[in-house]
Amino acid sequence: MNKTDHPYAERQQRLQKAMQAGGIDAFLVNHHVDLYYFNGSMQNGYLFVPAEGNPLFVVRRSITRAQQESLAEVEEFGSLRTLKDRLAQRYPGVFASGKEAVIATEFDVLPVQQFQRLEGAFPGVKWKDGSLLVKELRMIKSADEIALIRKAADVIDRTLEKALAGIREGMPEFELMSLIERENRLQGHLGLMRMRAYNSELITGCVAAGAAAAEPTYFDGPAGGRGLSPASPQSAGSRPIGRNEPILIDIGCNIEGYVIDQTRTAVIGALPDELQRAYEISEKILKEAEAMMKPGTVAEHLYLQSLDTASAEGLGGHFMGYGIDQVKFLGHGIGLEIDEFPVLAKGFKYKLEPGMVIAVEPKFTFPGLGVVGIENTYAITETGFEKLTVSREGVLVL
Amino acid sequence: MNKTDHPYAERQQRLQKAMQAGGIDAFLVNHHVDLYYFNGSMQNGYLFVPAEGNPLFVVRRSITRAQQESLAEVEEFGSLRTLKDRLAQRYPGVFASGKEAVIATEFDVLPVQQFQRLEGAFPGVKWKDGSLLVKELRMIKSADEIALIRKAADVIDRTLEKALAGIREGMPEFELMSLIERENRLQGHLGLMRMRAYNSELITGCVAAGAAAAEPTYFDGPAGGRGLSPASPQSAGSRPIGRNEPILIDIGCNIEGYVIDQTRTAVIGALPDELQRAYEISEKILKEAEAMMKPGTVAEHLYLQSLDTASAEGLGGHFMGYGIDQVKFLGHGIGLEIDEFPVLAKGFKYKLEPGMVIAVEPKFTFPGLGVVGIENTYAITETGFEKLTVSREGVLVL
Repeated sequence: MNKTDHPYAERQQRLQKAMQAGGIDAFLVNHHVDLYYFNGSMQNGYLFVPAEGNPLFVVRRSITRAQQESLAEVEEFGSLRTLKDRLAQRYPGVFASGKEAVIATEFDVLPVQQFQRLEGAFPGVKWKDGSLLVKELRMIKSADEIALIRKAADVIDRTLEKALAGIREGMPEFELMSLIERENRLQGHLGLMRMRAYNSELITGCVAAGAAAAEPTYFDGPAGGRGLSPASPQSAGSRPIGRNEPILIDIGCNIEGYVIDQTRTAVIGALPDELQRAYEISEKILKEAEAMMKPGTVAEHLYLQSLDTASAEGLGGHFMGYGIDQVKFLGHGIGLEIDEFPVLAKGFKYKLEPGMVIAVEPKFTFPGLGVVGIENTYAITETGFEKLTVSREGVLVL
Repeated sequence: MNKTDHPYAERQQRLQKAMQAGGIDAFLVNHHVDLYYFNGSMQNGYLFVPAEGNPLFVVRRSITRAQQESLAEVEEFGSLRTLKDRLAQRYPGVFASGKEAVIATEFDVLPVQQFQRLEGAFPGVKWKDGSLLVKELRMIKSADEIALIRKAADVIDRTLEKALAGIREGMPEFELMSLIERENRLQGHLGLMRMRAYNSELITGCVAAGAAAAEPTYFDGPAGGRGLSPASPQSAGSRPIGRNEPILIDIGCNIEGYVIDQTRTAVIGALPDELQRAYEISEKILKEAEAMMKPGTVAEHLYLQSLDTASAEGLGGHFMGYGIDQVKFLGHGIGLEIDEFPVLAKGFKYKLEPGMVIAVEPKFTFPGLGVVGIENTYAITETGFEKLTVSREGVLVL
């Protein structure tokens, strides 16, 4: 990569500007995805970003690889005990004597054990949670980032069509998932999708049909899935896909780090009337959300509007899960991770801005019968939105 | 599941015994894999285990699902602010007035942000890092656990044979990986392999050939792989597999939570003499390790012995990586996660015991040429070992 027009320089500058506004002397970036976002390399180490001046990437391994990827100068990690002194020498402004340096890092992901080691190695430093700052910076995507999500949208569309062509009555859910994963892989999917929330895992998405799709899970999403085992209690299981039941295909892929998330509802035969109607209301809610998608709309309003419509249609109890297992959002930001800002949920007061990318996923759950719904991913533009998802809509009848 | 002969009861008892020995009043299990190990359910919540008496699983979601899976009584999580009072009412011995309750949790994985919330909600509690205790308990597998790893070993063997039959000269590495992932999936692989280390990801393993396999990565293993992008800088990339170069197939799968890890070296044509010889030395090192695999052998001795042999054969500089990118171990424990105890590395003084399961992976890296080696997974028995890996050995000539 040509470092002179490195796309990460602007991100480091935005971080520094935010740090200056927040009274932060330095940011010690610890999370691999954030390391990649700010510096182009997710080798094992810390990126030290002073409020002013050039960042430094201290790397455990691979140094060789970091030198190829990193915008910042790379230094061997060496001993954690001497790290503070080495940084103080290079950044006297941050560690000026007589004042307590304020250093931020991502508390939402950093394990306690590693943090306690840092505290021990950096006496006299005041640590601050920099998670929100990172999430807010990453919330606004550049044109390059949106281009990659667009590419992922094209990949998942081709995958969906191959999967639809392969679905057979009696096929276990996991076999349908294997078709999807294979098509993704052959088109460059990295083989994993990242999620930031602790203890959460995403396995390509949720592919489940009929009663199995309606089984609740720990996963913070409207559809669950029985899964193959209590050791992975979500998404595709071994239940055979039946006739006249909704097949929920909530899937994504990861292209050069960027993920897409989309949902389509398919059926072999026809949906029962109640579910067909609920599907149509999910499309109605999506259209209503689209009408509000422009700079200035407050994120939570999209959710509150969807709740009103679901209730007015008599489906409030089935919306985004059922009963005590309902989730309290309509969608989420998406980018390098699937659970980014803004969340379309109560309390999220962010106004939509150009560059935000959101997945909007109205769904209805009917225990014993299944889940129906739709999900598209959108980029907010100056005048409204661009629908990044390209897959055909409507109930996909097989 | 019939709760009266629930396999998790014995694990909870072993945990309580270890807590009593360590002066711990209660363990708040926070990590999803540990929740599953100790209680059979990885729904979102905390498992509160008093040093004496019955544990309680406080669950955010899904309560419905937790009630089906959990051995411990399930209670709705409710407000974190009131959790301590509710626990104190149920467990007066733990929170007796006039003394500071010592509560352990897994500091190696719990994020700082979540820990600080716990500290705020549990005034007067002394928190202790319980990571090591959990790792030591999980280090000794039951017969049921070993049976699942054996099952995973059978799956990966069938997958390997299908993959070998599908390799063609010029096939990009990721296409070979897609064959492997599909065969795994069709045999019940859960679709992910878990790794405990922070910022580490495992994508089925490392499938890479020739020069690409020898490229170092952040990943704490002897083989790297170019990967498809700096956004996932490891394992399979898009380089076409060539003739007369080693194809490293370091793969696993996850059956009902339990993972296997094995490596085979294949080649279309023949390996260069230097690499063929190095492969044979990797088998020699493996046989030497097998000869030491019995109760009483200190874990680090397996590593030290392998270093001696590699050096005596003039291959010390290529062993387990090359140059500054060498890793300092010969193998690792394996079970629900790929990076379990004991580690076969200097400083690990655990004596091998019946029930330990270890993956032993001597490998040699030749920059520009490739990586050769072998890896088997073994269970330690009363008298020696059982080789769980069933795949054929030797360089697999295609």
